Amino acid sequence: MNWLRPLAAGGCRVPFGGQHLAPSCARRAFAAHPQNQVAEGVVKLQQPKAQPRTDEGKKNFILKTPKGTRDYSPKQMAIRERVFNTIISCFKRHGAEVIDTPVFELKETLMGKYGEDSKLIYDLKDQGGELLSLRYDLTVPFARYLAMNKITNIKRYHIAKVYRRDNPAMTRGRYREFYQCDFDIAGHFDPMIPDAECLKIVHEILSMLQLGDFLIKVNDRRILNGVFAVCGIPDSLFHSTCSTVDKLNKATWEDVKNEMVGEKGLSPEAADRIGEYVRLHAGGLGLIEQLVQDPKLSQNKLAREGLGDMKLLFEYLTLFGIADKISFDLSLARGLDYYTGVIYEAVVLQPQNAHREEPANMGSVAGGGRYDELVGMFDPKGRKVPCVGVSIGIERLFSIMEQEVEASKEKIRTTETQVLVATPQKNFLDVKLKLISELWDSGIKAEMLYKKNPKLLNQLQYCEDTGIPLVAIVGEQELKDGVVKLRVVATREEVDVRRENLIEEIKRRTCQP
Amino acid sequence: MNWLRPLAAGGCRVPFGGQHLAPSCARRAFAAHPQNQVAEGVVKLQQPKAQPRTDEGKKNFILKTPKGTRDYSPKQMAIRERVFNTIISCFKRHGAEVIDTPVFELKETLMGKYGEDSKLIYDLKDQGGELLSLRYDLTVPFARYLAMNKITNIKRYHIAKVYRRDNPAMTRGRYREFYQCDFDIAGHFDPMIPDAECLKIVHEILSMLQLGDFLIKVNDRRILNGVFAVCGIPDSLFHSTCSTVDKLNKATWEDVKNEMVGEKGLSPEAADRIGEYVRLHAGGLGLIEQLVQDPKLSQNKLAREGLGDMKLLFEYLTLFGIADKISFDLSLARGLDYYTGVIYEAVVLQPQNAHREEPANMGSVAGGGRYDELVGMFDPKGRKVPCVGVSIGIERLFSIMEQEVEASKEKIRTTETQVLVATPQKNFLDVKLKLISELWDSGIKAEMLYKKNPKLLNQLQYCEDTGIPLVAIVGEQELKDGVVKLRVVATREEVDVRRENLIEEIKRRTCQP
Repeated sequence: MNWLRPLAAGGCRVPFGGQHLAPSCARRAFAAHPQNQVAEGVVKLQQPKAQPRTDEGKKNFILKTPKGTRDYSPKQMAIRERVFNTIISCFKRHGAEVIDTPVFELKETLMGKYGEDSKLIYDLKDQGGELLSLRYDLTVPFARYLAMNKITNIKRYHIAKVYRRDNPAMTRGRYREFYQCDFDIAGHFDPMIPDAECLKIVHEILSMLQLGDFLIKVNDRRILNGVFAVCGIPDSLFHSTCSTVDKLNKATWEDVKNEMVGEKGLSPEAADRIGEYVRLHAGGLGLIEQLVQDPKLSQNKLAREGLGDMKLLFEYLTLFGIADKISFDLSLARGLDYYTGVIYEAVVLQPQNAHREEPANMGSVAGGGRYDELVGMFDPKGRKVPCVGVSIGIERLFSIMEQEVEASKEKIRTTETQVLVATPQKNFLDVKLKLISELWDSGIKAEMLYKKNPKLLNQLQYCEDTGIPLVAIVGEQELKDGVVKLRVVATREEVDVRRENLIEEIKRRTCQP
Repeated sequence: MNWLRPLAAGGCRVPFGGQHLAPSCARRAFAAHPQNQVAEGVVKLQQPKAQPRTDEGKKNFILKTPKGTRDYSPKQMAIRERVFNTIISCFKRHGAEVIDTPVFELKETLMGKYGEDSKLIYDLKDQGGELLSLRYDLTVPFARYLAMNKITNIKRYHIAKVYRRDNPAMTRGRYREFYQCDFDIAGHFDPMIPDAECLKIVHEILSMLQLGDFLIKVNDRRILNGVFAVCGIPDSLFHSTCSTVDKLNKATWEDVKNEMVGEKGLSPEAADRIGEYVRLHAGGLGLIEQLVQDPKLSQNKLAREGLGDMKLLFEYLTLFGIADKISFDLSLARGLDYYTGVIYEAVVLQPQNAHREEPANMGSVAGGGRYDELVGMFDPKGRKVPCVGVSIGIERLFSIMEQEVEASKEKIRTTETQVLVATPQKNFLDVKLKLISELWDSGIKAEMLYKKNPKLLNQLQYCEDTGIPLVAIVGEQELKDGVVKLRVVATREEVDVRRENLIEEIKRRTCQP
């Protein structure tokens, strides 16, 4: 039986496979594997929906987690740990510190940062005192933290849950509570050096997770700004046009154009002009040069700046040896308001897949960009701290991995227990308690059944079920001989070990230093 | 300079000291060290309190975290990691799995579980859909999880933030958002075996953290129930009388009696009868025997059960070799409604203290007990799952440790960076980028300054400031000779290492496998 340690350090080694995941932004949560949805369904069936809220103590109320949330079982936690360990080890390798912020912020801290998405913010009830809202991402709290503490230079990661009141009817399979894994670099530095490192980090993490081939799309808000300008779009429509263009990876150009003209009020001609640009993608230095030569675009200051930095970025990415996985893509716009420069989004092209034939639609698994104005919005004097960062779409990576484990029938350990203290004898509880506390006190991970007189068979079965590799058995004879019978669960081999050598022997057999 | 790794495995080795901490329940958060309060004060001063809420985008609003919450700086996070690692390693040693639950629950899930404290629950604004509240502890969500998933047998730990709208005016130095570290054992087992393990865990953690001498008070709700009964207290007043008795560790008997008679409506005689019992403490088997002989109490069924189990508990604690640190104390009542059997609370008597003479008042650092009815409150058929658990007062342990570090002037690393890639040359950015990506790709934790041409002195100073032990220096000469100059920051010793041996040499010098 192939047991896997939940907390194995470094990257995970199992192959991955994703299935039927709707595309979505990397800063969003993801479709759980079918089981979760079934389980949720079952609960709903058990509990009539229309049931009235009940008084204290009563038993008949709806037994469920809030809409859009879920519990993590020990097995899910073990899988999640693997993905987290891979990501955290990468963040640490790049010298990041870690911070934490409260789960809620003053409501006004979040106001005016998310554009159209602000309606998805959870507010707390006014119970007297301050008006509070649950954090919508980790970026705005980070900017608030920098301004509040007058920090002008930091490289930090932050892994925590964020909250969005998405309508599951609209966005199937998304969660309202989900994790974000953010890495950001703040400070006044030379252009594109931190930006390039963020892309290197995405490259490292996706490689370590072995999701198969992937592509990182990059663009720059200044280039988009220039494009829109030369197409005759007023600045007032910049953000809303961005969020429309951002739909190009899910919708056809026609749909996008209809939204531009119908909802956003662009002229059909302007929309068509935009179309000619934003359909230019899958390019590298060649496409950059082409745009630098573009008669109209080259007249636009912002576009020239953006294109110059994009060229520099590709030079650095080439030195990092990852340029082949990066694609300059004018159709990438990103939803959020606060981006001011380079933006990027990683997509897995076709997951490595040991268990299914057809390729799976994976969509985006990471995204981010530069936001140089956000900290200034909080600073009383408006002092700016340039920032660039990336967020890993952990929920998607997690659910892909979970499906893979499901499919592979791989057995996952949810504990690290090294030895079970057992006995064939009746009334040997006192002997077991003495022995197990010796083991605990020497750092051995040990368990025993909480019964006074469990059957030996049940004790051995417990090891089979939970993956405990060793059993320390004490009976009359062992007690008399001053030994403990050490049994290897996998091979059923048994050997008598002198009591005084037991701890050393267990450590040796479980490779613990 | 004595650098300490933030994530060093196992127990922490620095001495501890606490100062002027108000006593409080272990499931509550704690007084930050003075600095935090000062910092908070400063922020308040900077920001006129009466300032109006502002519109989107505006800069002049109150720049702060919500009342009763705080950010954790990288240094604070490094210290917190140490305490977490000690606690988690202990939980894992005892074979616990880990679960996670949403930060909010359906409002009715929390109703009727916390008695008088329910008024401290944070509610979310009704934005359509379900009525939600932030979790108040991790115990009720755990019980909901067991009932919802029909789990009858589990040993799990859960470390997460909980939320209580305490009035800081009343409870100075407490936080409204704070961490709990819970370990619980659920299932039908033989009496007091899991209960004894919970106490063993508290003993292990407090010993590993080296807080100095400590005492774990134990009592049993059934014994208290019997005591109140023979003193003529009606069952209806049981819980409120418990919460009054629970104040005995902070208030005098006179104050407690006044509350009983004045607020709770007990007769002075009944209060005096209670007083005779609850002032019996600091006992072990002797006190248990005395109460077993008590003519009135011995007539009470619940009291007899409780005393019988208490005797059994002490037998097991003696086998664990920790009975000397456990004290049977009739004045221990615990605040929460859901306890049904044994209850306990750990207090640090006098912290080990390298920096001050006078002993510090430490109060409670851990607490818990048995709650056999809680899961049944959620199960549609009322099926019970007996549970016993403990919660470690992590915020208090953390703030004590933080003060100690403050006092010891100990320098704490907030990153794990092994080497800084540096150069004395101008225009060597490309060389640095190539080298550092080689290091990253071989698992070396490496940083470089984000400037094109930083001064060598600044690069070396950065290592001094952040505790990076090695510098990899490449200039014209090194490049020509195919070597890298490896500098040991502490000794300033420099040695040329052939480029192909660099990674191996760095790993050797930083003891990385």
